Amino acid sequence: MKFLKIPAATITRLSIYSRVLEDMEKQAVPVISSKLLAELCGVNPAQIRKDLAYFGQFGVRGVGYYVKELIFDIRKILGLNKEWRVAIVGMGNLGCALIAHGNFAKQGYRFVAAFDADPMKIGRKLATGLVIQPVTEIVAVCRQAEADLGVICTPAEAAQDVANRFAQVPIKGILNFAPIQIQLPDGFKVENVDFTVKLDNLAYHLTAG
Amino acid sequence: MKFLKIPAATITRLSIYSRVLEDMEKQAVPVISSKLLAELCGVNPAQIRKDLAYFGQFGVRGVGYYVKELIFDIRKILGLNKEWRVAIVGMGNLGCALIAHGNFAKQGYRFVAAFDADPMKIGRKLATGLVIQPVTEIVAVCRQAEADLGVICTPAEAAQDVANRFAQVPIKGILNFAPIQIQLPDGFKVENVDFTVKLDNLAYHLTAG
Repeated sequence: MKFLKIPAATITRLSIYSRVLEDMEKQAVPVISSKLLAELCGVNPAQIRKDLAYFGQFGVRGVGYYVKELIFDIRKILGLNKEWRVAIVGMGNLGCALIAHGNFAKQGYRFVAAFDADPMKIGRKLATGLVIQPVTEIVAVCRQAEADLGVICTPAEAAQDVANRFAQVPIKGILNFAPIQIQLPDGFKVENVDFTVKLDNLAYHLTAG
Repeated sequence: MKFLKIPAATITRLSIYSRVLEDMEKQAVPVISSKLLAELCGVNPAQIRKDLAYFGQFGVRGVGYYVKELIFDIRKILGLNKEWRVAIVGMGNLGCALIAHGNFAKQGYRFVAAFDADPMKIGRKLATGLVIQPVTEIVAVCRQAEADLGVICTPAEAAQDVANRFAQVPIKGILNFAPIQIQLPDGFKVENVDFTVKLDNLAYHLTAG
């Protein structure tokens, strides 16, 4: 149960902290100072303290953070102490790239269903062992596969229809790569990925710098 | 010239405002209320006013924002009133998906060079007309093509080497899709894209909600 409204930016930063901490863990670093952790995450130490303070007391004054412990705690805060089952729609280059991307599995996201509208692709077996299913089967297949999260990488014009099907499952969390704003009822959450927004950040810094 | 330190989140939101405004422009909407714009962007109207206030006076009280005008102003703020020339390295599924993604061209980003390390891919002509070049040629080709921005979608172990080559061009803004933290000298700016961070946001909301 959460009693405070946590800023979205805090959640995003917690994710980033855990990624950096995982790198430290791989290098067998047991403890990290808040200064170094902040530096590696591109924030200041006060920000890390503030973000964590929403959820309790972490770290030891004068020592820093125990790497394994903090990874465990952050993953628990984010709800990553379970496996998330992901359905993906649109098996073009982007869909294939996502399914092959090692990061998802590493973070506890498992692709359990893949869909496409193209009859030439339906029935094809992917390297992961998944067989591409028709989009018309999204509701039935996702229910059976117990998918929790949906990823849309279709063209813009197909995305709303896919989202509507996800909503019927119901799949309440959707990652949308299609360049369109998806409309969903309250209680559903869409995260849009627009690569060009990141490029705009670079353009701004090169211009303003 | 900028005299204030502008928060990174403001720049990201300006990008998002301009995407929503462009949708409005396509629908031939001349004016948008700050309330509706805020709703479509998923923020509150005060946030929009605050973000824009860093750069001057925008909108008309009791009317809202003139859509075309505000798009123009935001694009100018972000440095998008010019074409940005982009070099991309790693022509796997993700690289091919990015180069084919209509959003980049629409936002003024033009791919001017593509590279890969795989001898089987080098020399291949892409649908855009670009020919895949060897990574060893990054410095020479990028200088000739006058690339401003670099995109890395190689495996993790190749990314730092590519970044070092970009730094020699010099290309000062890099969008990094490889799952690794890239180290670059001061004055260079890297934006990391980690899809799983977005999924973590969803996981958190489904868990906490």
